[in-house]
Amino acid sequence: MAISIHPSVDNGIAKGAEGFNGGSLECLCASDKVQVKVASQVFHNHACGCTKCWKPQGAMFSVVGVVPRDSLSVASNGGKLKIVDEKAAIQRHACTACGVHLYGRIENKNHPFFGFDFIHTELSPQKGWDGPGFAAFCSSVIESGTPPSQMDAVRKTISDKGLATYDCLNPPLMDAIATHAAKAAGTYRES
Amino acid sequence: MAISIHPSVDNGIAKGAEGFNGGSLECLCASDKVQVKVASQVFHNHACGCTKCWKPQGAMFSVVGVVPRDSLSVASNGGKLKIVDEKAAIQRHACTACGVHLYGRIENKNHPFFGFDFIHTELSPQKGWDGPGFAAFCSSVIESGTPPSQMDAVRKTISDKGLATYDCLNPPLMDAIATHAAKAAGTYRES
Repeated sequence: MAISIHPSVDNGIAKGAEGFNGGSLECLCASDKVQVKVASQVFHNHACGCTKCWKPQGAMFSVVGVVPRDSLSVASNGGKLKIVDEKAAIQRHACTACGVHLYGRIENKNHPFFGFDFIHTELSPQKGWDGPGFAAFCSSVIESGTPPSQMDAVRKTISDKGLATYDCLNPPLMDAIATHAAKAAGTYRES
Repeated sequence: MAISIHPSVDNGIAKGAEGFNGGSLECLCASDKVQVKVASQVFHNHACGCTKCWKPQGAMFSVVGVVPRDSLSVASNGGKLKIVDEKAAIQRHACTACGVHLYGRIENKNHPFFGFDFIHTELSPQKGWDGPGFAAFCSSVIESGTPPSQMDAVRKTISDKGLATYDCLNPPLMDAIATHAAKAAGTYRES
């Protein structure tokens, strides 16, 4: 049986269009859609197995990436947005009507990824967004009901699509987090 | 410049001897050594970049594995042992004289690895212990002063020795942790 990861992986990985500089994200409501404008290509876009990110119905993984916080603004029907969990490091601003997460924002200035908002580019009608470049938190799909016995097949399905699989983030991002921690602890050495 | 990971990696990876069933671990004191007996081969032995595990002087990584808790007992000079941090999930029992960690123990019965003690087999005079099988928490060595610019070379050095590198644990252990979390959350599905 073929394993479905996420449409943006199952149907082949998109490559970002050169010069593409963003677009809009829209919730799934039939009318009065929440609309968010993003004036940036997405960075570090990846499939994510965590249980907190929004995923389309039937998908095992979400696909999520970041944009500079100041490139994102709410354009329409922002009154329908509500933060899912105020205490989470990433505050997910979701449409209270359809449940879609329009963007995730970090308010803690000491967080390693402060300054970046998290978005799902599949919510955009524009083409040109960069597709997922790796898969993160793969083991976590067990926490949303994937049987552990399927994990070899899950990882292989993702690898076969050309994406490396990780049970945390990828090495560049994990190194960035550790660098941030080292600087905070006073143990950072540049060379 | 050659990068030194840990003697148990730099000098080639040991393969466990068939039928090997444990031995003793000794601290580095010249006299009145703390001695711990272990009646088991080590499992899931790995190089670990975290900042909490004990490492020999000059090593970038520790090498640590687990044994069933009831296979381990303190044989001599246990009075010199003290827990490094009572609040850590893994309570590291260290020699107060030489600083070596003889074993790490988990007291929280809800921890995914409860029932296993963490040991450093390099403290054993016996041969036959299984060598490290992978490298975990690689990015964390940045937190103990490894420059981020060296990380590509660090990972390559480890890979060249035949060990896969991860920034968390390896997939089987990460899946085990997720399975434990799924069972606790009531989201576990066997098939």
